[in-house]
Amino acid sequence: MGEQKIVRREDGAGGKYMGDFLRKLIIPRFDSSAGEIRLSDMDDSSDFGDYAFTTDTYVVTPPIFPGGSIGKLAICGTANDLAVIGAEPKIMSMSLLIQEGFQLETLERILDDMEQWVKELGVAVITGDTKVVEADIGVAINTSGIGIRNRHLERNIEVVRDYRDYPWRWVRDCGAGEGEAVIVSGRIAEHGVAVLNAREGIDFDMNVESDAFPVWLFLKNALDAGGITAMKDATRGGIANALNEIAEKSRVGMIIDEERIPISGEIQGFCGALGLDPLSIANEGKVVMTVVSDLAEETLKALRKAGQKDAEIIGYTTSEFSEVVIETSIGTRKVLPPPVADPVPRVC
Amino acid sequence: MGEQKIVRREDGAGGKYMGDFLRKLIIPRFDSSAGEIRLSDMDDSSDFGDYAFTTDTYVVTPPIFPGGSIGKLAICGTANDLAVIGAEPKIMSMSLLIQEGFQLETLERILDDMEQWVKELGVAVITGDTKVVEADIGVAINTSGIGIRNRHLERNIEVVRDYRDYPWRWVRDCGAGEGEAVIVSGRIAEHGVAVLNAREGIDFDMNVESDAFPVWLFLKNALDAGGITAMKDATRGGIANALNEIAEKSRVGMIIDEERIPISGEIQGFCGALGLDPLSIANEGKVVMTVVSDLAEETLKALRKAGQKDAEIIGYTTSEFSEVVIETSIGTRKVLPPPVADPVPRVC
Repeated sequence: MGEQKIVRREDGAGGKYMGDFLRKLIIPRFDSSAGEIRLSDMDDSSDFGDYAFTTDTYVVTPPIFPGGSIGKLAICGTANDLAVIGAEPKIMSMSLLIQEGFQLETLERILDDMEQWVKELGVAVITGDTKVVEADIGVAINTSGIGIRNRHLERNIEVVRDYRDYPWRWVRDCGAGEGEAVIVSGRIAEHGVAVLNAREGIDFDMNVESDAFPVWLFLKNALDAGGITAMKDATRGGIANALNEIAEKSRVGMIIDEERIPISGEIQGFCGALGLDPLSIANEGKVVMTVVSDLAEETLKALRKAGQKDAEIIGYTTSEFSEVVIETSIGTRKVLPPPVADPVPRVC
Repeated sequence: MGEQKIVRREDGAGGKYMGDFLRKLIIPRFDSSAGEIRLSDMDDSSDFGDYAFTTDTYVVTPPIFPGGSIGKLAICGTANDLAVIGAEPKIMSMSLLIQEGFQLETLERILDDMEQWVKELGVAVITGDTKVVEADIGVAINTSGIGIRNRHLERNIEVVRDYRDYPWRWVRDCGAGEGEAVIVSGRIAEHGVAVLNAREGIDFDMNVESDAFPVWLFLKNALDAGGITAMKDATRGGIANALNEIAEKSRVGMIIDEERIPISGEIQGFCGALGLDPLSIANEGKVVMTVVSDLAEETLKALRKAGQKDAEIIGYTTSEFSEVVIETSIGTRKVLPPPVADPVPRVC
């Protein structure tokens, strides 16, 4: 293998290779902060004062799929990056990159979706940009979002500090401690599978819809229950990536009970048939979190009460080892490695 | 002509058609504000509290050109949108959309440029995103920026209020009053011409470089001189677009002395040969502003002292008519219409 001379697909695919790419090209040039969270922390959002700030460009093929569209994703995805550090999404920018000749009707459906979810969340889109290009991009949408600290976050952090040292003002992905519960907020892999199944040439007979959803709408209840020490939304690279990032950044290991991971039979069948690992497939409305163990049941109850009826405690953090370990139904253990790249491209 | 069914190039080309497109598709769905400036105001930035917020996605062919690159543009252009409402650029996000197979060396040159101008401006890049796509996009870069109110802006607005009613907290593009001076900060059309001349098939023998530059570095001095009532950076659609937008939004007319518009002989020759109107060609480091007439000379002096030696008073606002009128050297007058679209695509 010679020196890398071109940009590869996996350099932007949300796994280990992308991390390497960013650490080589971006971090050395731009690392900085305006508050507590540095660019090099590669958390889901950064912060300044009492505000959180994040950005994401969405590229999805096809742009409309069962359960949503690139428009719904552009609102929910950016709002979710704010929500998982505990910030309430409040303000967004919207930048459209549209291929010349793109069907107006499709664009209008995408914009309708954006409008709907902007309203559900109560965010204000206050600035934007539109460019039309010849490149065969279809439509790509950047949304940058600003969120605020509020009483839900304040309360959660106060409660965590009753239990242990927690030096941060936001819920950080490096914040997990040992002996804490690992919770996933619902059934996994539905976004990636729904998008993949909507592509030409693949058409399994099933009713799977994308799980795209603004997680703030239920996370505020979970924050009220208190005790959340780390969160990530499990997008590119799936829960395998989210769990590994929390474990690595927090310097804890995890033991995950495979049987407790919520997943539908249809998704399992689809993944089995295509040789895909559902743990590394993207979600767009699922959060992985660690919670002070005394409060795990209360948090789970709050999530379920807020509509996340499939939320589960799937395991615990440990200081005995530093990997994410999966325990299977027959009692064997295997390490769950961080995905090198998302197995399904262009899903977010 | 039937009903429009597809997205056309001119729908994203910065002129009248784009305005119509936004008023039809975007504004009815998303119009909102978090402060003084509404999305429907289509000003260069919006605001929340003491912060300004803006977004722009850059698509430039070729990505590296005389005087700069898409990287320099992505930093300067977004900083400039903040600066022209009087905000000091402070924080940015950076979202890269890269074509699979893109040359790493070119990407590194682009990133080097971004790094240089991030440092010149003293902004902090605190959050980002990277996606790799198959589409033939080369590299597209979204930067969203956050700026702050500071003493330069405060002083300027205080001074303006000594002269007349000025109901805003920011320098608004609807803020021009009658009988004010119109200033352009330097020689026009250099960005669009430099990028166009760098394209395959066009190669005039000339030394024109893009004027891409972070205008905050000289606008802070102009704000200190006081008296600025409206500003726009003259990007897509050139000064023809910027002047018309200020005039229309402020409900004033303008009389512009053609001979006083700063332009190099080379640019005039290039535009003449290609049948292009330099007034509607993009700039990336030039500001058009209106200034209380008593303070016009002082503002001009401040601009020149801050390095903008070609800055000129090019005309005056009037309440006698509502158009932008150009007076030629032989004394004839003609209306300068708002461009329907930028004559040179993919320059910003």
